[in-house]
Amino acid sequence: MRIALLGGTGDIGGGLALRWAYDTSHTVLIGSRDAEKARTKAEEYTTELDSRGVDVDVAGFENRAAADRANVVVLAVPPYHVGDTVEAIADALDEGDVLVSPATGMKRDEDGFHYHKPGAGSVTRIVADAAPSGVDVVGAFHNLAAARLSNLDAELGVDTLVIGDDEDAKRTVTDLAEGIEGLRALDAGGIANAPEIEALTPLLVNIAHNNDGLNDLGVEFK
Amino acid sequence: MRIALLGGTGDIGGGLALRWAYDTSHTVLIGSRDAEKARTKAEEYTTELDSRGVDVDVAGFENRAAADRANVVVLAVPPYHVGDTVEAIADALDEGDVLVSPATGMKRDEDGFHYHKPGAGSVTRIVADAAPSGVDVVGAFHNLAAARLSNLDAELGVDTLVIGDDEDAKRTVTDLAEGIEGLRALDAGGIANAPEIEALTPLLVNIAHNNDGLNDLGVEFK
Repeated sequence: MRIALLGGTGDIGGGLALRWAYDTSHTVLIGSRDAEKARTKAEEYTTELDSRGVDVDVAGFENRAAADRANVVVLAVPPYHVGDTVEAIADALDEGDVLVSPATGMKRDEDGFHYHKPGAGSVTRIVADAAPSGVDVVGAFHNLAAARLSNLDAELGVDTLVIGDDEDAKRTVTDLAEGIEGLRALDAGGIANAPEIEALTPLLVNIAHNNDGLNDLGVEFK
Repeated sequence: MRIALLGGTGDIGGGLALRWAYDTSHTVLIGSRDAEKARTKAEEYTTELDSRGVDVDVAGFENRAAADRANVVVLAVPPYHVGDTVEAIADALDEGDVLVSPATGMKRDEDGFHYHKPGAGSVTRIVADAAPSGVDVVGAFHNLAAARLSNLDAELGVDTLVIGDDEDAKRTVTDLAEGIEGLRALDAGGIANAPEIEALTPLLVNIAHNNDGLNDLGVEFK
């Protein structure tokens, strides 16, 4: 597979890029609105992997060029950029490509973090509504702690929930997820089930904030 | 402690009653709108515990009489009965008693189960709004599978999230929760953080429904 991580210079995108490059033989492409920034980050990741004895080239591109070279495109961008990002890359997507949505809307008040549910129902739904016809959308990787994902010495041992309305696309993303060591992918149904998954992310932040010794939390369903 | 489980004839209330009677020395009282039904269930639990070599009497009462005898009152009733139940027992509550809210609103459509967020913000908030002054409200036990809780042979090994705006009341409920073997209580902050916790329950149902071999799911934060 050729996986483009749009927003791959950021926390969750960088973590997924490193894990896929380290644990699998998939081709990893870093995308950013700024091609130069993407190249710089890609070089950092390549150096990090080389220091661990993994000889792969992670390449960086402007978002559209990264999406054009990939068959799975992960939208690791802030929720308020998701719609624009899909629009900007739409004509670079081919029929059969899969768009993956890991973003979640959060707002903070004095009590903690809360789910900021978009009018469309979920961020994953925003992506599904914006996706060109023939391109399937899958929600996944919403509830992973970026710092832990980015640290290749950190064990995961957690689950990620996969949602989507096309079973083939879900299987593709499930296989990609389970290629990462210590990550189990569970089926949580269709995109209509996204809000409860996206809402779990602020809850993880609240739990980490309120309990000493619990940081960069993930979740295991058992 | 004297713990009243209102709705203790139902699934989650019965499970908590059995676990506390089996694992701790707290006095467990079963409440129901129907005193006769409460007594019948209490006898069933007593027989079940006796068959396991635990010699305790679980007693059953009408809700108000159960609440009157307890210092911790768990509202294990459906979410649409929570307000009425608090009203019905209000004058039996003493200052310093703690009300515990485990209920969550769910609705089902063709895709699965979804969180049915009450207008007040959460079921826990409904309880807090209805509680008499001097009685603190704590949310806990939202995300436990009733069948697993009720089966004393089933290992738990899962977490429950505790929320509340009074630290002493939270500590009381945290201690009660951790008296149950295999249950870890985590602090998730104030009652304003309830919606994301209550929304986790329908998600657990959706995951169990979509993955063979996963039933009566709980969650561990790790």
